[in-house]
Amino acid sequence: MEREEIVRKLVNGELKFYQVEEVTATRKDAVEARRAAIETLTGVRLDSIGHYSYDTETVTKKNIENAIGAVQVPVGVAGPIRINGEYAQGNFYIPLATTEGALVASVNRGCSVCTLAGGVNTVVFQDEMTRAPVMTVQSLAQAKEIMAALKTPELMAEIRAVVATTTRHGELLRVDPYVVGKSVFLRFAYDTKDAMGMNMVTIASEAVMNFLEKKFPGTRHVTVSSNMCTDKKPAAINVTEGRGRTTVAEITIPKDIVASKLKATPERICYVHYRKNFLGSARAVSFGFNSHVANVVAAMYIACGQDPAHVVEGSNAITSAELTENGDLQFSVSMPSLPLGTVGGGTGLCTQAECLNLLGVRGGGNPPGSNARKLAEIVASASLAGELSLIGAQASHDLARAHAKYGR
Amino acid sequence: MEREEIVRKLVNGELKFYQVEEVTATRKDAVEARRAAIETLTGVRLDSIGHYSYDTETVTKKNIENAIGAVQVPVGVAGPIRINGEYAQGNFYIPLATTEGALVASVNRGCSVCTLAGGVNTVVFQDEMTRAPVMTVQSLAQAKEIMAALKTPELMAEIRAVVATTTRHGELLRVDPYVVGKSVFLRFAYDTKDAMGMNMVTIASEAVMNFLEKKFPGTRHVTVSSNMCTDKKPAAINVTEGRGRTTVAEITIPKDIVASKLKATPERICYVHYRKNFLGSARAVSFGFNSHVANVVAAMYIACGQDPAHVVEGSNAITSAELTENGDLQFSVSMPSLPLGTVGGGTGLCTQAECLNLLGVRGGGNPPGSNARKLAEIVASASLAGELSLIGAQASHDLARAHAKYGR
Amino acid sequence: MEREEIVRKLVNGELKFYQVEEVTATRKDAVEARRAAIETLTGVRLDSIGHYSYDTETVTKKNIENAIGAVQVPVGVAGPIRINGEYAQGNFYIPLATTEGALVASVNRGCSVCTLAGGVNTVVFQDEMTRAPVMTVQSLAQAKEIMAALKTPELMAEIRAVVATTTRHGELLRVDPYVVGKSVFLRFAYDTKDAMGMNMVTIASEAVMNFLEKKFPGTRHVTVSSNMCTDKKPAAINVTEGRGRTTVAEITIPKDIVASKLKATPERICYVHYRKNFLGSARAVSFGFNSHVANVVAAMYIACGQDPAHVVEGSNAITSAELTENGDLQFSVSMPSLPLGTVGGGTGLCTQAECLNLLGVRGGGNPPGSNARKLAEIVASASLAGELSLIGAQASHDLARAHAKYGR
Amino acid sequence: MEREEIVRKLVNGELKFYQVEEVTATRKDAVEARRAAIETLTGVRLDSIGHYSYDTETVTKKNIENAIGAVQVPVGVAGPIRINGEYAQGNFYIPLATTEGALVASVNRGCSVCTLAGGVNTVVFQDEMTRAPVMTVQSLAQAKEIMAALKTPELMAEIRAVVATTTRHGELLRVDPYVVGKSVFLRFAYDTKDAMGMNMVTIASEAVMNFLEKKFPGTRHVTVSSNMCTDKKPAAINVTEGRGRTTVAEITIPKDIVASKLKATPERICYVHYRKNFLGSARAVSFGFNSHVANVVAAMYIACGQDPAHVVEGSNAITSAELTENGDLQFSVSMPSLPLGTVGGGTGLCTQAECLNLLGVRGGGNPPGSNARKLAEIVASASLAGELSLIGAQASHDLARAHAKYGR
Repeated sequence: MEREEIVRKLVNGELKFYQVEEVTATRKDAVEARRAAIETLTGVRLDSIGHYSYDTETVTKKNIENAIGAVQVPVGVAGPIRINGEYAQGNFYIPLATTEGALVASVNRGCSVCTLAGGVNTVVFQDEMTRAPVMTVQSLAQAKEIMAALKTPELMAEIRAVVATTTRHGELLRVDPYVVGKSVFLRFAYDTKDAMGMNMVTIASEAVMNFLEKKFPGTRHVTVSSNMCTDKKPAAINVTEGRGRTTVAEITIPKDIVASKLKATPERICYVHYRKNFLGSARAVSFGFNSHVANVVAAMYIACGQDPAHVVEGSNAITSAELTENGDLQFSVSMPSLPLGTVGGGTGLCTQAECLNLLGVRGGGNPPGSNARKLAEIVASASLAGELSLIGAQASHDLARAHAKYGR
Repeated sequence: MEREEIVRKLVNGELKFYQVEEVTATRKDAVEARRAAIETLTGVRLDSIGHYSYDTETVTKKNIENAIGAVQVPVGVAGPIRINGEYAQGNFYIPLATTEGALVASVNRGCSVCTLAGGVNTVVFQDEMTRAPVMTVQSLAQAKEIMAALKTPELMAEIRAVVATTTRHGELLRVDPYVVGKSVFLRFAYDTKDAMGMNMVTIASEAVMNFLEKKFPGTRHVTVSSNMCTDKKPAAINVTEGRGRTTVAEITIPKDIVASKLKATPERICYVHYRKNFLGSARAVSFGFNSHVANVVAAMYIACGQDPAHVVEGSNAITSAELTENGDLQFSVSMPSLPLGTVGGGTGLCTQAECLNLLGVRGGGNPPGSNARKLAEIVASASLAGELSLIGAQASHDLARAHAKYGR
Repeated sequence: MEREEIVRKLVNGELKFYQVEEVTATRKDAVEARRAAIETLTGVRLDSIGHYSYDTETVTKKNIENAIGAVQVPVGVAGPIRINGEYAQGNFYIPLATTEGALVASVNRGCSVCTLAGGVNTVVFQDEMTRAPVMTVQSLAQAKEIMAALKTPELMAEIRAVVATTTRHGELLRVDPYVVGKSVFLRFAYDTKDAMGMNMVTIASEAVMNFLEKKFPGTRHVTVSSNMCTDKKPAAINVTEGRGRTTVAEITIPKDIVASKLKATPERICYVHYRKNFLGSARAVSFGFNSHVANVVAAMYIACGQDPAHVVEGSNAITSAELTENGDLQFSVSMPSLPLGTVGGGTGLCTQAECLNLLGVRGGGNPPGSNARKLAEIVASASLAGELSLIGAQASHDLARAHAKYGR
Repeated sequence: MEREEIVRKLVNGELKFYQVEEVTATRKDAVEARRAAIETLTGVRLDSIGHYSYDTETVTKKNIENAIGAVQVPVGVAGPIRINGEYAQGNFYIPLATTEGALVASVNRGCSVCTLAGGVNTVVFQDEMTRAPVMTVQSLAQAKEIMAALKTPELMAEIRAVVATTTRHGELLRVDPYVVGKSVFLRFAYDTKDAMGMNMVTIASEAVMNFLEKKFPGTRHVTVSSNMCTDKKPAAINVTEGRGRTTVAEITIPKDIVASKLKATPERICYVHYRKNFLGSARAVSFGFNSHVANVVAAMYIACGQDPAHVVEGSNAITSAELTENGDLQFSVSMPSLPLGTVGGGTGLCTQAECLNLLGVRGGGNPPGSNARKLAEIVASASLAGELSLIGAQASHDLARAHAKYGR
């Protein structure tokens, strides 16, 4: 069909927006026709959105429907930051996609302090993507029977066999059951290697639930996603039990570096941190005992083709600042729930792939999972840099005011 | 300086990345030089990131530092969705920037159901951007004195005068004090009109704290941001007290539309919703009693130039599904904390501005604040569409399984 | 009726347990008959329960139904503790009813430290008993209309007049509305003077809701208690917004007293506190950033005739430990939600009344409310003593282990 | 020493309160002397407190220090309630110690409904008392090493051997590690049989930590209780992971019984429940999605010699009300964290022992643990009765108002 005809049909409703690909030669034609139709329907020009560099044929339904183009988000770099991780070792330039000024500068300053102090130490302590279906049972006794069965190697072997029919990469690590009334929630935790893994674990869990529904007559598989996963909602279970790559980054910064680079003292940083990240978060009843970890996670996620709604889980970070016995600054960021991957999702788009390349983590790692863990260590380190810089600035500000006022 | 020289100096460290703008004729030159230097330093090609359509001169430090280009995020449209709001009235095409397949299709389906059912009703119930500094006091008696003074019109008038020296647009609405030990947290709530307002309220609150520090000798202003704001961390205070545009969207969908469009029944939708969004969220101890609101918020925020770290607050939504007395579906999404704006931040970038134009909310509204509230109503409506579609799909799935199994 | 006949009828079901008072001369007869019947029905001897000293005629339906006697809970005293409060001034002996060893000893030790250090400073910052009914509305527009009306002095005057028809003592302080879908939650906050006040605020709120239901046609008053109160459930709204007597207690303890009395150092106390009450509570996602405040609250509540289910709210405490610039220990306990009273409930029972007498807070205060606030200050001070003692013991233990190990 | 001399010395400070037992012939003498001294010191008469029936010699330091007597709390009975549990089978009379009128009557009504409907079904799904020490490590690598070692049967065998040196009854079930910065929290879960078990698990965990400290040089055992247990603080980890006896009670109540006994309909009960226990608790950000479970738990705990501060954990209950396909009421209460025991603590006091006898759960069970689980099932059933009665009353009230107003 000609573009004009398509546009006309879209405008008058004869053609649905999601049907355009069926009548155009290329995806690019479909995108352009749809954009033109929207322009006609709304009277709004969308020229800039129509300007993008990726190959439209590579951006399929795996990424988007009803595409009309792209938005552009500026990318800045912070760093280099030295990281002494299990997977991330060396100096890294951090790509940050953001439209909020001061963020890149802040992370950059933190990176500089960290590198000068010898680098950030980091470890991925747990690596589990979770999905929690819910089923109903006929009686509490049946719920107890299922819980008992899930502790037997026999049933777990059967379940693992079901999982194996759905994925070559994913591996079921454990199942945690929770009972509320006559509903049984099963929180499945998988090793998803380099994939963030939500699709993989959803398909696998759906298959397992269909299997269990038959295995335990009278039960009913209600939905594969019950909110005990918990995906993209703030949830304590992610803080305590972890989700995605559970990562900690820490560093000890000598007091002279704190003084010279952050214009503050370790004492003052701890003082501000204690009031802000502890007392303030406690009284606000927050899951986030940090300053602005979500900023760093969001900017890196957008740059690197991650699912940006996972910033919700990423924001569950605990920042700690303490004096060492020598009066230096012991600083850490603990991120229990950091879902991310280096394959799938938006990681294949050209601009995002370049950002992953910049970090040396594009595609599947060797061994599998190593790229994703490396990325997790880098995100945690950049988050630490951001925390250090912002809290340092507040402490320095506070110190400056004190100087101005008391002359000390 | 010539680009080659700049790149060389960047590579060998003679020039800092943030200094490049000082030695180039244009911002574009600086971006290109920096990108070239990063390419040299890392051996990674960044061609695609270098391809963008916005005018680099317009993307200043207000948006980013150390820019090397842009990432592109595909944009799809869902809709039209009919909205019967206070500010948003009529049919809207929803721009969603995402790399996760199925999202646009899902929202699109929900929009279609909502429009057929007469449209989504929506109201912004509260509109307050908050910032919460913390100060220390000399004694609990002084804390009480300050709390008492904050209830007097005299002190509030003085404080409002201080605020007025920092902003023409912003207006202080109230101050809520919270005491923890000898720390006093003051949660300031402002009307920021069409701006998301974080910068505005930070500057104003800083000025107020400097004023209060003098007014109450012996107190000490520690930091302008104490985590009781709470910015970009999951926090109960945002759920209960609200932050940004506190918005509710609701609709009643006749059971025949539920059947024909969602292939489900209102009963089954309520059944799935109850297990997933209530029992599951309760046992996971979540602030989010919804299915995937964060997906919609993230995709709209990125498309429309919002701060994507605010997805954290946006995810605090409560979805409700109930039967009416007639057996129809009463469905709502309540979003207590939805920070957003139509001026400032990333709203001025050309692709983002086009998305705002698509919704008719670009720039300052008339009266001030009306564009931002309109955008809030649209985001809430699109979130509702996404919820309806996903829960409907799960219910339909569940129903289909039941059919297959029991032949009913 | 003779006791034997009553017992026989109770046993064979001709008489209901709650009907016994109707057929006996005295309450005591009813209690004895019921106990005898239960003994017969279960074959269990209840001699000890039958042994109590209070005058049964004074223990009416206001306190209990189907009474069969009483349990006895041992009471110990800790103290004296010096308190420099607004209402509590001087030295106090703390009555603690408990069956758990070490509690009284622990509080006692803390009292001794506090008194030696000059006493605990304490202030009641807010004093509001809350009740939150929920109503349904016909539309979001109506919800907005109601919210707007609640900000007018006219409607508030009408509401206060309704409240005045139900109580002479209680005074409505404010109404905070929250909207979820088409449900409007109104959180009423009252000054209940010396009463804990739940009954008072329930009756008053019920009357107000009946009034509002008529005032706003189409609305429906669903229940007077909606869980946004929040009564006897852990709830963030109580932590942020307060419930009952919002009280803070603090003290600075010279380092030499810490050393001599607690066998610890301020540094080590802060170190243990930081890990336990901050990092541990943060990762456990707790509302309670304290060590064992609930122990003290429970023991004082049972001793003093308070409602022991309010220990739930009482446990929401934030303990803070920091070094002063001189290296002394700044220590505080902040209790946002401490419901209690000195009239009504169990305060009139003879043993409980004696405990209140011991603290000089029995009955209504002069001015009204002063006794309850005094009690709140004492509970907060005793809680602080308990915190100090337990954390001090852990720090001392830790120090002792370090000594043993490292000889330092 | 003569009582007069003791009193004199206590009053003038020559003798400490905790030293009295050392100079008297009997504990009773000590109690009386102390009470007399307090009377002298404060001028307050404590006659009633001095009136108690238990044998003072049996109330040792395991229960209280500085005893001066006892408070009496009235006990009423509700029931019988029919329970079809694993351990509790048959009809039970529920002892409730309370000073708040209406509670016994409310539970009693619920018991009657439950019994008429065939009884409450109940299961203890998990039975673990937890204690979570915290240790510091030298590096994240060491933390990872420890986490890995804890997954080996070898280290677990060694740890179990250490546990076995401290307790004959307790059995270590699992250890869950959590890392925050350089602090490692180990949440130990034990089977404590019929004991509530806090003392047992504290002693065992202390021994394990001393062992681990040596096993992993450079680590440091900071405190045996880190708040990740979480003991007596509201904490999400208890809701998700459980603490004590994790118990569910459920029942289906035919609609005609709902109508005749509760004067309500299943629909109206679900309607009120949905608004109150779901929407209200969600917006209040509560861990408790129930109406007044804490009331029942508190009253049974005090009657039965439990630690009343554990009401905090007990209040973490999720009540669910739904329609069955037949229009009957499916009702449940899920209690993830219910710490209790039938030996130790206050269970040995004569009045409390009688209450345990009334339920047939006094002392150690056969097999061990069965008495405690039976008690847990009874507490959960009584809680369900209380929920049903209160929500039923609110629904009936609501229905009555509707009748009055609309004549329907």
